[in-house]
Order: sequence, then C-alpha cells, then structure tokens
Amino acid sequence: MSGIKQTGEKNLMFFSGRAHPELAEEVASHLGVDAAPTTLRDFANGEIYARYQESVRGCDAFVMQSHTYPINQWIMEQLIMVDALKRASAKRITVIMPFYGYARQDKKGRGREPITARLIADMFKTAGADRLMSIDLHTSQIQGFFDGPVDHLFAMPVLVNYLKDKIDLATTTVVSPDTGRVRLSERWADTLGTPLAFIHKRRDLDVANQVKVSEVVGRVKGRTCVLIDDMIDTAGTICKAADALYEQGATNVVVAATHAVFSDPAVDRLKNSGISEVIVTNTVPLPEEKRFDKLTVLSIAPLIARAITEIFSDGSVTSLFEGDS
Amino acid sequence: MSGIKQTGEKNLMFFSGRAHPELAEEVASHLGVDAAPTTLRDFANGEIYARYQESVRGCDAFVMQSHTYPINQWIMEQLIMVDALKRASAKRITVIMPFYGYARQDKKGRGREPITARLIADMFKTAGADRLMSIDLHTSQIQGFFDGPVDHLFAMPVLVNYLKDKIDLATTTVVSPDTGRVRLSERWADTLGTPLAFIHKRRDLDVANQVKVSEVVGRVKGRTCVLIDDMIDTAGTICKAADALYEQGATNVVVAATHAVFSDPAVDRLKNSGISEVIVTNTVPLPEEKRFDKLTVLSIAPLIARAITEIFSDGSVTSLFEGDS
Amino acid sequence: MSGIKQTGEKNLMFFSGRAHPELAEEVASHLGVDAAPTTLRDFANGEIYARYQESVRGCDAFVMQSHTYPINQWIMEQLIMVDALKRASAKRITVIMPFYGYARQDKKGRGREPITARLIADMFKTAGADRLMSIDLHTSQIQGFFDGPVDHLFAMPVLVNYLKDKIDLATTTVVSPDTGRVRLSERWADTLGTPLAFIHKRRDLDVANQVKVSEVVGRVKGRTCVLIDDMIDTAGTICKAADALYEQGATNVVVAATHAVFSDPAVDRLKNSGISEVIVTNTVPLPEEKRFDKLTVLSIAPLIARAITEIFSDGSVTSLFEGDS
Amino acid sequence: MSGIKQTGEKNLMFFSGRAHPELAEEVASHLGVDAAPTTLRDFANGEIYARYQESVRGCDAFVMQSHTYPINQWIMEQLIMVDALKRASAKRITVIMPFYGYARQDKKGRGREPITARLIADMFKTAGADRLMSIDLHTSQIQGFFDGPVDHLFAMPVLVNYLKDKIDLATTTVVSPDTGRVRLSERWADTLGTPLAFIHKRRDLDVANQVKVSEVVGRVKGRTCVLIDDMIDTAGTICKAADALYEQGATNVVVAATHAVFSDPAVDRLKNSGISEVIVTNTVPLPEEKRFDKLTVLSIAPLIARAITEIFSDGSVTSLFEGDS
Amino acid sequence: MSGIKQTGEKNLMFFSGRAHPELAEEVASHLGVDAAPTTLRDFANGEIYARYQESVRGCDAFVMQSHTYPINQWIMEQLIMVDALKRASAKRITVIMPFYGYARQDKKGRGREPITARLIADMFKTAGADRLMSIDLHTSQIQGFFDGPVDHLFAMPVLVNYLKDKIDLATTTVVSPDTGRVRLSERWADTLGTPLAFIHKRRDLDVANQVKVSEVVGRVKGRTCVLIDDMIDTAGTICKAADALYEQGATNVVVAATHAVFSDPAVDRLKNSGISEVIVTNTVPLPEEKRFDKLTVLSIAPLIARAITEIFSDGSVTSLFEGDS
Amino acid sequence: MSGIKQTGEKNLMFFSGRAHPELAEEVASHLGVDAAPTTLRDFANGEIYARYQESVRGCDAFVMQSHTYPINQWIMEQLIMVDALKRASAKRITVIMPFYGYARQDKKGRGREPITARLIADMFKTAGADRLMSIDLHTSQIQGFFDGPVDHLFAMPVLVNYLKDKIDLATTTVVSPDTGRVRLSERWADTLGTPLAFIHKRRDLDVANQVKVSEVVGRVKGRTCVLIDDMIDTAGTICKAADALYEQGATNVVVAATHAVFSDPAVDRLKNSGISEVIVTNTVPLPEEKRFDKLTVLSIAPLIARAITEIFSDGSVTSLFEGDS
Repeated sequence: MSGIKQTGEKNLMFFSGRAHPELAEEVASHLGVDAAPTTLRDFANGEIYARYQESVRGCDAFVMQSHTYPINQWIMEQLIMVDALKRASAKRITVIMPFYGYARQDKKGRGREPITARLIADMFKTAGADRLMSIDLHTSQIQGFFDGPVDHLFAMPVLVNYLKDKIDLATTTVVSPDTGRVRLSERWADTLGTPLAFIHKRRDLDVANQVKVSEVVGRVKGRTCVLIDDMIDTAGTICKAADALYEQGATNVVVAATHAVFSDPAVDRLKNSGISEVIVTNTVPLPEEKRFDKLTVLSIAPLIARAITEIFSDGSVTSLFEGDS
Repeated sequence: MSGIKQTGEKNLMFFSGRAHPELAEEVASHLGVDAAPTTLRDFANGEIYARYQESVRGCDAFVMQSHTYPINQWIMEQLIMVDALKRASAKRITVIMPFYGYARQDKKGRGREPITARLIADMFKTAGADRLMSIDLHTSQIQGFFDGPVDHLFAMPVLVNYLKDKIDLATTTVVSPDTGRVRLSERWADTLGTPLAFIHKRRDLDVANQVKVSEVVGRVKGRTCVLIDDMIDTAGTICKAADALYEQGATNVVVAATHAVFSDPAVDRLKNSGISEVIVTNTVPLPEEKRFDKLTVLSIAPLIARAITEIFSDGSVTSLFEGDS
Repeated sequence: MSGIKQTGEKNLMFFSGRAHPELAEEVASHLGVDAAPTTLRDFANGEIYARYQESVRGCDAFVMQSHTYPINQWIMEQLIMVDALKRASAKRITVIMPFYGYARQDKKGRGREPITARLIADMFKTAGADRLMSIDLHTSQIQGFFDGPVDHLFAMPVLVNYLKDKIDLATTTVVSPDTGRVRLSERWADTLGTPLAFIHKRRDLDVANQVKVSEVVGRVKGRTCVLIDDMIDTAGTICKAADALYEQGATNVVVAATHAVFSDPAVDRLKNSGISEVIVTNTVPLPEEKRFDKLTVLSIAPLIARAITEIFSDGSVTSLFEGDS
Repeated sequence: MSGIKQTGEKNLMFFSGRAHPELAEEVASHLGVDAAPTTLRDFANGEIYARYQESVRGCDAFVMQSHTYPINQWIMEQLIMVDALKRASAKRITVIMPFYGYARQDKKGRGREPITARLIADMFKTAGADRLMSIDLHTSQIQGFFDGPVDHLFAMPVLVNYLKDKIDLATTTVVSPDTGRVRLSERWADTLGTPLAFIHKRRDLDVANQVKVSEVVGRVKGRTCVLIDDMIDTAGTICKAADALYEQGATNVVVAATHAVFSDPAVDRLKNSGISEVIVTNTVPLPEEKRFDKLTVLSIAPLIARAITEIFSDGSVTSLFEGDS
Repeated sequence: MSGIKQTGEKNLMFFSGRAHPELAEEVASHLGVDAAPTTLRDFANGEIYARYQESVRGCDAFVMQSHTYPINQWIMEQLIMVDALKRASAKRITVIMPFYGYARQDKKGRGREPITARLIADMFKTAGADRLMSIDLHTSQIQGFFDGPVDHLFAMPVLVNYLKDKIDLATTTVVSPDTGRVRLSERWADTLGTPLAFIHKRRDLDVANQVKVSEVVGRVKGRTCVLIDDMIDTAGTICKAADALYEQGATNVVVAATHAVFSDPAVDRLKNSGISEVIVTNTVPLPEEKRFDKLTVLSIAPLIARAITEIFSDGSVTSLFEGDS
Repeated sequence: MSGIKQTGEKNLMFFSGRAHPELAEEVASHLGVDAAPTTLRDFANGEIYARYQESVRGCDAFVMQSHTYPINQWIMEQLIMVDALKRASAKRITVIMPFYGYARQDKKGRGREPITARLIADMFKTAGADRLMSIDLHTSQIQGFFDGPVDHLFAMPVLVNYLKDKIDLATTTVVSPDTGRVRLSERWADTLGTPLAFIHKRRDLDVANQVKVSEVVGRVKGRTCVLIDDMIDTAGTICKAADALYEQGATNVVVAATHAVFSDPAVDRLKNSGISEVIVTNTVPLPEEKRFDKLTVLSIAPLIARAITEIFSDGSVTSLFEGDS
C-alpha cells in the first residue's frame, strides 16, 4: 500500500493579543470557545515573547488584535503571533483588526511620505497572514492593499439600530464633519431617510493669513444633527463641527462613530462640548477614565463572532457587507 | 587585471503604444527626442505583436499608453511592451498611464467583486515595471496599490489657469456632482477662493419604489457653478447635476474635468445640456467626432514631459504634486 | 474548549467568461452542474465588470474562457474573474483555457521581442490562479511557463477517432505543413500507422529576391494526405501546403487541427481550396458564418468535463495525457 | 445546481530518493506503507530523471533524502522530486532531510562567502516545498532560513537511552570537542547529570608561528569522558580531543554524535584512536566498509516515522522537540 | 534622436530615526554630512508620521535606527522610513541597525515560538531595504535571515584597543558567562593571548528541586577575569558570573560587551557588583541616569561611518570583518 | 550639506567555476582581463566551498560554468557562486551557461515528470541571478523559463563558416536526425542553400512488437549529408541516422553540433561510424581521451567574450542572435 487515507477535518482556533482582552473574551464567548491559551509577555528591553500553549497544527486560526495605544507594540505583537502560527503549521491564518492601525496613512498626501497602511498589509502577508478582517476601514480602498481576501465589516447596522429609537427622524439631518466623510454620511442619510449636510473648512476671505472658518453646507436649523465619522481620535474636528451646527441653529447634536480612539484631549473636548450623546463601538478598548455620562458604547463582538463562524464554515459573509460602496 | 572600469551613463528612451499617438508626439517634442521606433501590430486573431527597432539595453525607459477604448487591448499592449523592455535589458522601466484604466474598480463595493485597479498595478509589476506615473487618479489610494514609486501628477493647475480668466470668481461656487468628489471639489474651492456645494442623490420620500432625486446642498442661486470631476465617462451624472443647478437658480454652469473618456452618449448629453463650457485635458484621445463647440481641450503633454525629465535626472517631482491631499 | 471541529468538505464550482457560452453549457452539462451565476458586463468605456451572484467561499473553482477574438478582452475578463475569486475566498482556482492565447509568442524569435506566453502565465499567477488547464498547447514547453500544475490535454484521440473511419489508412500519408509541426505529425503517423511527410518552404535558387517555394519532402503521390496542425489561423500555410500536395500528385487532402481560430480570410481560403474535409474541435467558438460544408466540428467538452472531475476528486488525469512528448 | 460537494479526504504518501534506501524502507515499514513507486535514474551525462508511477494528486507528500556523498547529486534529486510533486498537484510537500546538507555554511565566516544553508532552504521553497523536517541541525538558527514550518527533531533521547546503561554516570564528564559545541554538550550534561568540560584550541605562546595546542578546560582526570558532536565528518577534531583527554588523565573516552558523515579518513582515525566506543545514528548511510568493531549505529527511523504520522494527523510534534534551546 | 544621455552620478544620503540622535550626529559628523532633514512625529494615538524634507530621488540611502526601548516603536519607525524612501525613488536603501532588535529570538527554542529575528529581516525586505548593516549580531546566522547583502561589523577591535592598556594580560583569563558565548570568548582569548574559562549553570545534585549552581570551568584563581558578552540586558547572568569568579579566587573582574541594553535592574546590579569596570559601546543610547562611575562607553560611530563610506564607494568592507567566524 | 555626490562607475568582473577552466581562460583572454581570483574547493563530504579573493562590491559580474559531468556538482557550484556574489554586493549578476544543463527536461513528456529546465532557471533567480546567457538552447522556449533577460547566442555562424569551405554545397543535403530538429535543420538548409531531409523513426508494420525503423524522408542519394543537432550526448541517434543515410545512398555524412556532451559510448560510436567528420564547439570540455581524428572542435570563446562586452557596455547583442526563430 502506498498511502494512508483519512477524512479531512477542520478546526477553528481563536487567538488574541493583549491589547483588548475584554473584546476577546466577548468574541470567544459568542463563538462558544475559549481563546487558545497563549503566553505573551515583554522582555525587559521591550521585546515581545509569544508562545502557544497548545498544538495549532492544521488549525483554521483567527488572531485578533485591536490596534490601540501603544499601537506599534500591539501591531508588532500581532505580527509575531502570525509568524509563530505559520511556523507551527496553522493551516490558514485570518488576521482580525477591529480597528486597522495606520489606516489614515493610505496615500501620499505629499511627496516623500510613506503609505503605511499598505506597509501594514504587506507586513502581515510577509508574516504569514492568508486573509484579513476589519471593521469600517478609513477608506474602502485599503481592501486592495492586501493581496488576498479581506472581509470588511460594517458597524452601521449596530449603531443605526440603537440610534433610530432615540431620535425623531423627521427632524433629523445627517452631517459629515468634513468633506472626506460625505460619502459615508450619505449612506447614513440614505438608511435613515434624512437630509444630508456637511461642514466645509474654508479660508475666511475677510481675514488675512490662512484663517479657516467652518461653513455649514445644508439645512440644519431647528433640526437634530447626527454627526458621522469612522473614528474619533482627538475629537477636534467633531467638536468644531458641533459648535458650527449649534451656531447655525441646530437644536441638538448627536455623534456616531465606529472607532473610539479617544486620544488626548478627546474626552475633555467631548465632555465640554454641546454634543448631547456620543455613540461608539468597542473596537478599541475604552478604560473607565475614558468613559463619561453621555457616552454610549455598543458591542461589536457579536458581529465579529458571526463573521468568524461564516468564514470558518465557508458561509457567505456578504450579507454582513450590505451598505458598502 | 581582474576588471574593466567604465564611467556610468544613463540614457532616457521614450516609448509609446498605439492608443494616443498625438499625445506621444507632443510629449516627445517637449522632451526634445523622438519616440523610440517600435513595431506594434495586431495578428489576424487580435494578438498584439511588439518589437523595438533599436537597442534598449541599459536605458531608462518611459513607456506611455492612454487607457482609452478599446481599453483591454491598450492595457495588454502596454504590458507586452513592458515585458519586451524587461527581456531586452532596459535598466529601469517607468509606466506612464495618463488615464489609469479600471481606476474606479478600486474596492469591493459589494461582496465577490474584483479590485481590478490593484490587479492592474500587480500585472504591471509582474511584467517588469519599476515605477508608475499617472494623472489625477480616481482615488489617491491607488498609489498604494503599486509596490514601488508612483508619481501622481495633477492637472488642476492647468485647468485652473485657463478657467480663472473666464469666470468672475466673486459670483462662482464650486460644485461636486456627487458625494464622492466633495474632497476634490474642496481643493478647487480652496484654490479659487469660492464657496462649495454638492449634489446629493436621495430617495424621494414622497414617491414609492426607490426613485432618487438630486438635491443641491449649498448656495448656488444666481451664481456661476463650476462642476468638478476627475473624469467624464457617459456624462450622465454631470448633466443631471447641471440640470439640478439650473433648477436651483444657477446662472451658468461650467464643467472642468481631467479625463475626457466620453463614452456614448456623453457627447450628445453634453451638447444638449445647458452647460456653457466643458474644459478637459487630452489624457485620452478625442477624435474629431467627439469634439464640439463648447468643448475646450488643454494639453497635458508639458506636465508629463516635465515629470519625465525630473525623474530621469533625479530632480524633485514633488513640486508637481502640490495640491494633493 | 479552545477549538471547534468540523468535517472538511470540498465543493466544485464551474465558472465561465463570455467568450464561448456554448462550450461552457456543454461542459457544465457533462459535469451535471450549472455554471455558477455570474454578472459580467462592459462599462461604457470598455472596462469589464464582474461579480459572482452566489458565495464562492472555500470552493474548488474552475474558471473557463476561450481566448478567441477580441482576445485581449477575453483574457482580461478571465484575469478579473480570477481576482474576484481570490478575494472572495475561493480555496483553489483552476484556470481553463481551451485555447491558450498568445501561445505562439513563446520565445524571442528576434531580439527585443516579448515572450507574451510567459507573461500570460505570470499574470494569471498574479491574479490568483493555482493551476492551469489547456488543450494542445502550441509548444509543450509552455507548461513550464506556469509556476504550478498545468494539465495539458490532447484532442488527438477525439480527432483520430473520427478520422480513422473516413479514410483508408493503407493509402494515407500524414503531412506536416511546415518544419515546426513535424514532431506533432509524427505522433499522428505513429498512431495511424502511416508514413510521414512535410512541406519545406525554401528559397527558390532559380529566382532572385528571396522568393520561397514549398517543397514536399516525403512520399505523397497517389495518396490521401492528412495535414496536421495545432491551430488554423488565417489558413495561409495550410492551403499552400494542400496546393503543393496536389501538385505532387496527392489524390486527396484532409486537414485536422484542434483550434479553429479562423481569422480572415481563413474561411474563404479553406472553402476555395482543394481540401476535401477540415476537421476541428470547438475550443474556440465558430459562429454560423464561419461554418461551411466540408467543415466538421467535434466537441471537446467531454474531455474538459472529464478532466475537471478527475482534478476535483484527485483522480489521475495522466491517462488523458497519453501521446504527449 | 451550481456545485458538487464531496467530503474532504487526506492521503499520506511517502517518497524517497536514492541516497539511503535502507532508511527509507525502515521508515516506510514503521509507517505501515510502501514508499510510493518512483522512477529515478541518471541520464548518460549525469542529469537525473524522475517520475512517479502512481497518481500523487492531492496527496500529503513526504519526500526524504539523506544528503550524503555525492551530496550535490542527492540534493538536486530531491529538488527535482519536489518540482515533480508540485507540478503533479500534490497538496502539501514536506521535505525530510535527516542530515541537512551544507548546514555548516550557515553564515559568512569571512567576507565574500556564500550562506549556502540559506540557499538550500530557498531552493527547496522555490521547487515547491511547503515545510521541512530535519534532525539535529548544525545550528538551530537554520530553522529560520526556511520561510515556513520546520520540524526540528532531536536524536539525543535515542543516543542517551543507549548510553546511560553503558557508563557509570557518577564518574562521567560530558566534553565538548571545541568551543562551538559547548551549548549542545551542556544539554547532555544536564540530561545525564554530569559535569561539563571542553577543549579549547589556543596558540602555544612558547612556540612561534601560530602553533595551536588543545587545552582541556574542566575536570576529566580519572573520569569517563563522553565527547559530543552533532556530526563526525573527517573525525580530526574529535580524535585530537580524545588524545587531549587521555593526556589529561581520562580513563575512557566515548563519542556520541547524530550524523556519521565519515568522510575519509574518519574511519581510520576513529579505529586507530583510543576512543572506546563511537555511537551514532543512521541519518546518513553507512556501508559495510565504513563500519568497525567499536561503532554502534542506532536507528533514527522510528523517530522520523512518528514525526510524519504526527504531522499528517495534525498532532503535536512538539513533544519530540523537548531538549531544544 | 531617440534618447537623451547623461553621465551617471551617485549621491549618498544619511537618515536617522529618533531613537539615538547623539549617535546619528556623530556618524554624520564623521561622514562630513548632515543627516537629511526629516519630519518624524507621533500622532495622538501613537501612529508615527514620517516625511523627508528634501528630494531623495536616486540617492544611495543609509537609514539608521538604534533598536532601543521602546523597541517596537523604533523598529516600526525605521520600517516606515524605508517605505517612504522606496516610494520616493531612492536608488538603494541600506538599513543600519547598530543593535539588531529581537536578535535573541533567532530560533524556535521550543515548539510554537516565533522566529522574530527572521521576521524582522523579512519585514525590512518587504518595506524596501536592499541591504542591512549591523554590529555584533547575537548569532552570525542572522546574516542568513536577510535575502541580500548584510554587512556585519565587529566592535571587538574598539573594545580590545581600550582594554589592553588597562590590564596585565599575563595574569588575565577571558571568561564566557555561559555556554552560549564560549565561541565569542575564544576569539577574545585568541586576540589577547590569554587562557579561556566559562561558567556553567548546572543542577546541584546535593539539593532537590532543580536548583542550579554556577560552576566555573577553567583557571581563574588569582587572575584578572574579563567577562565577555555581546549584550548586557538585565545584567543578571553577568553579575552572577562575576560573583562565581570572585568565589573561585579571581582577583578582579572586568566586563566587556558591545550592546549596553541596560534594562532594569541592570544599572543597580552592576553598580552593586564587585565588577571593577564595565566597558561598552554606544550602539544603544545611554542616558545620564544609566551611567555610573565604573562604566566606560566607547564610540562606535567611526566604525559605522567608515563602513558607510566603503559601501557607498564600493570599497571592501571585509577588512572591518576580521575576527568573524 | 546633506549628501555626498560621486560620478557613477561600472566595473566588469569575470568569474568561472571549475568545470571548464580552458574555456574560462580563453574568454578572459579575449576580454583582456584575468578571471577574478576565487577559492573553490570541495569539503571531504563533497560540499563545495566558495570565496572571492577580491572585493566584488558594485561590480557587473559575469559568472560562467559549463554544465558538464558531474553536472549536478557544477550547477550547484555556480548557484553557490551566485549566492556569494549577491551577498557580497555585486551590482548585477549575469550567469553564463555555455551549455544549459537539463535543457532537455523542458516539458512534462508524461504525467508526473518534473520540468527541470524551469527549476534550473528559478534556482538561479533565487540565488540572485539578474540575467542569463546561453548558447543554442535545446528549445528556444527555455528563454521564457527565466524571469529576466536571457541572451541566447548561436553557434551556427561559427560552424557554418568552417563547414562551407569543406563541402560542395551543390551536392549537399542538410538532414535532421529526428523529427524534433527539423526546424533547426531548416535554418541550416536556408543558410547553406541546400535541400532538407529528415529521419523518421516509425513502427515497422511488417514486424510485430513495436520494432521501429529509421525512414529517411527526403532526397539523399548520391549527396553529401550534413546531420545537424544542438547536442551529441551518447551519439545513438546520430549514428543510426548516418547508417540510414548511407543505406539510402548518401555518398558522405558530416555531423555538425554545438554541444559535444559525448557521454559513453559516444566516442566509440562516432569513431566506428561511417561519419566522415564531426564538427562541434567547446561549450563543454573535451579531454584528450574524448578526442579522435575526425573530430573538429571550434572555439566558442570569441562569441562569449563579444557578448559579455556588448552587455557590459549596453551595446546591442541582437546582431549575435540573427538566425533565431
């Protein structure tokens, strides 16, 4: 006999880095598994050590890391985890980045800049990633930076579901805080059936020296405004946008965004602003000190778990994509 | 003696496919060279044959093709030309695509779609391209699709230079024909010092069954509107936008765009529209039958020639990039 | 529990581009499946759009396209289909090209030519192809252009099976129309048990200026001659060969070839020639206007379907290879 | 219906080159299979011909070759076998090199040297290898030369198991024959619970002109010394080390090594030395003329067979790794 | 005319990340250039931004970063700098890492570990590095992790030059602090003409439970001991080694090492130890709070500058390698 | 100042393996250089060691090896030499194989065979080769196996030049010894202006059991026959062909071939045959014992030297290609 035959089997294993343990636990719980036991620690000089405590041979590996602060450390940890999976014979490696780090560096805005979002994709490929999963990429084109399948999920249904019970859509306008998010805001307006407006920063021609003023384009007077963004980093743009809306007679401003990066001084700005509610998801960890009364955090874990299950069983994730364009 | 030394030399050679000979001649003339003599023809079954009539060993090759109709043929011709350059020992190969074909397919809008703009970049890499040059990419992220340097040029200075003498900026508004071009329009508004508006297609809530209406967001009444786009394909969007602007009281509508793709029925639509002038460049060929009275075609050849010269002599092309973001 | 186990499964899906729908239907019918529903259309400027209407996750994909006129379009369509399969998580992608486009450009005949047949192989690799299948490659070496498995099928059994009932082998000679097909013709002669001859174009030493005459080398007088080629493009060579054979006293000339490319003026030439029968397969589409009385078209679909089944079930395709050398 | 489903299956096949048929038979016998029938022969000019006699489609291929003399021929044969497996659609290819050829050329000791151990890894990758398996690599870093999983097995348990019944550990010292094997020897000392010593070649300061003397560092007087090495090539170092140990009063010297390369004049040197026993494994073939009375050859086949089985069934090979560092 | 000729020119540019500005200044000063002006800063969420302020087209780029704490940030910064150089058309990119981060993770010590040192090499290749330069790699095999030229420099001449005037070689022994550095120590002993010893951690057989004791192997009584290591991280091993040497009667212990990583609590340990002098280089930055009386820091900048000059002018760096093995 | 400028320079260096030192000397002499001093030797177990004795930084390296017996050793030596050149920073590496080993394994003749000629090309690419040069490849398609420039030279002019003075062309026929060389022979017939014939091995229908007879197709009676082949290995085919020609009345048979592989029993066969003269080149070494009276060996060194010079100085090698098809 010149061969041994066995029935093929596939085995889902879920791994998580150290950046966002709460989300990992939630996702694992929705999957009905434990995250695979993994040793992760820093050497004294900051080098990261990783080792899997159980065999990962032949597994269909899903390895999740939230690219939060200190972002370079967590990206490197995820890269190292992928390398270890490859060398330990995982069959297929799906990298899950609920928030894709460096996504804003997706083009050369000026000469002699890097395109770090592409570099990130290439480094994960080099380390051994077969596929990526992420949520609300800063621009959809980032899908094209990876040479392989990218499952691009959308948090909008989660956010919309919560929001539509809280506001009167008849008197609501969806507002893009700048010209770069108008397309995204249009999807919201379309879904909610509301008008659309945007804020446009332009030079004040009455004042010298490049001073810029925020001009509201669209109808907002007497209306509830829902400001939409994919991420809130320092909250400067979003708070200035809210101010401009109130100045133009908005009765209420609500903010909805997927990624609550909340770098300093985002929390202070949001607290002190006239914004009545800030609705985000937990794609990045939000420690207690970054939480405040008018903040609502919705969980993204069920969406991620469902996508993992679909990918593992070769179901169709496309239904999770609806709304993309 | 165990070696022979020579002073290094570099040698610029310029090549062109058959898609747009007029532009090739103009560029060559600005460079002060002839396009390198090249045999290009179709076999009876449509296969393309290419051969260089002079040695290209060690040359710094610039090979230009306009991705115009029949677009797949011209892309393939350029790929074949690159392969022949690689195999004939060109030292460095710069692919010039004044208009980057398939640029609109730059993401998976829905599941199970290709990302053809990335595929194009990869195929040129595979064929042997070291670097790309293009003008007004549909999205700047396409730069990141190529694993190597991309020189991204802008036609705006050429168009603005012409336009600003023709209109009264004090009564002008720059308008984006849809939500995807707002960012680009903002750069124009910034440069011209005008207000900004956009057209938003939304469901008409008064009518059943997904009918969409074009809503103008921003101030256009009594003003000259400059509609901005990177390309005009069938001109459907741009003409509907013009109609909506006139309905809202615009006094005049002018259109400025880089790439005059002008697929049917673009010419008829533009002729029959209320648009007073259409200003484009010659990145794609415009045969006589696609030209009409109110069309102005500005030449992009000086910009391309200048970029080639800078690249060849390791000067800085970055100054040609100003305005990008 | 740190994993979820499932029994592995494999799922054959068959896809077809738009070049040759009849063959696709035939193959699908032999497989007992429908071709997977696929949206394929051209944008106004000739760019191709592709999208699969059903999930292709984890499938064993076979994507077929006949590289017929307009050949560059159909090659590009197949490349785009492969890219979409890769990005939609197909598990394995087999590209089927019944006729391999650009196969004749398989070497640098002269300096500064491309090797487009290699470029084609590399582009499919880049797009995501894991393996190729083709029929009667112009030269067997093309197998080596692809970095992966190539299943090279042979139409000879199909053609021979038909032919041997129609002619008297005792008075038949197999003839190669030029010096490049002698090896192939030898396989036919070997199979049929007949003598072998060939046509040799050489300079006529009696006439100045490079005039070439067709010289028949071998015994053809009073015999039925079977002219063999892998493809008939413009039919110039084959018709001149037939003339030369009749001149040398052949009683009858029959032509057998796999790929009926039939570029103009092939049909006229063949009709007007003294050839009594032309036997081909349907690897490329033959519309009504290219069909004529003495043409016989045999179907290659059963062969393709059988190879697909063998590949899918890890059977041995090698038996389909017999006769290769 | 647009697909055909089947249960996945996996099929182990074991292949062997011609370098070490005895080991192949032993491994196959432990696996309970026959080695897959393979045609391997040399053409008259030394080129190797390979062909598999049975279908290998979809199989999980393990292809073993011992890198023994003539080493370049056997390495090339294994590379060619991998290429044939790739092109014949093997699903996964594991290259087994019981002794990894060129492992000593694992760095640039001086400028302008190759790093052939890396080249070997890259060539197997290029040929189509998915993974490597080897035993007692000269340095563990060679694992990192391959871009994929490397299963690094250890013969120490086999050797120790035999040795510990033969010597009195209380009066034993483990000795490294030079400074490069101290780490390896430490693992032995740790396992056996013995002291550690090493030989240090240093310039004799009393004599001019770079004469080197072997200095024993550590306690060996009146003790049984176990000299440890990963491989014995010409046995020069090991025999000089034995001499030095006897000079320093060792009562007995035993040698243990994994790879019995035994190039000339190793056998003579070992026979003529004071070494009382040489214990090795059969990772390379040892023909009768290289065997001698005090030589003990232990079989490595059970270890290899067990590792193959674990890899095939996605078990954990890590237990076979214990002792690595 | 179908070409433009120019004499080739090459242009050295030196770039530095933010990890170790003092070393960059020193190297630049030895080169007689300024480091190229570069914008480097962190966004609020920790993402790094890089941009070159001058054209880098066609330059021969040397980009240096010391992989010190926070090591992942500095590695990522260097990767991003390389990506920006590649995309801005630098002709050749040499990555200088005076201390190669993650060099200790150069093999799988146990199953399911990464080989991060290889990953680092691959990521720099992916980003665009053509070549690497480093000093005293933890193991020489790391050279083989990079697919391209690696210039491996040695600090030993710098350290030896200083040391040999401070100690009496006649009464000196070179000591390896563990079994992994014996080879390196041998090179020192060879250069200084001294005996060699090493420390061996072994289980104390008189005590239960895996307690390990440091055993000195070799002659140290009444002698000055020079402890050698490539790097000092937490100084645990080196201080225990010094204790063991004093216990065995050493009169004096000096430490020499290339990389002064000095993670906590290295400084306290060294200060409080009996070591009389610690001699290191400045491959990593040593802020004031990590300096102490008996510490001597020698500059590595002249060595790096000389290597850069040799590489730029295609001279031979090999002379800088002497002592490697 | 942020840069150092120098005029670029290029430096040709010529290297040779140990397979064919006479040819290397001849080529070097024609170039007017010495081959670069290189250490090449075998370790006791057959592993090859290579080191360059002079700096090769930045050089334009040409590294030649004749793939003669023992062919695997010489191929490996050349691969190792390329690796060492790459790691020592050669700027460009051209691999010269006067005879390309394994060229006959250029396709899968049957299922489950390797395509070793492609593997060879890929391995040289992996090792670091930028370009290949070879003479009279077995099939021209092998050019397409390498991803880069291949300079394919032809020995025909050298052979023809010698031959045409020795025979009466008016009574000469060029003959292909089998059906695979008819195309090549046609080029000869075209150049010499003679008729063409070939030998066809076919089953003898009068005899059972696959006996094959050599049938001469074409006019040879009373003529001088020039048998053409690219290589003579065991000379079986060529000698049988000569016999068949004499049987058919040829007055004289001369053989011309590029590569005199001359494996046993080629020399005996040729000596004992009726062939009157055998004309070959020195692409492979021909030791005294393989030379015989009627053998003429022409030197290929001038052709190689001229091609090297052209490549180095970016001249056109295409003129050396004339006659290819």
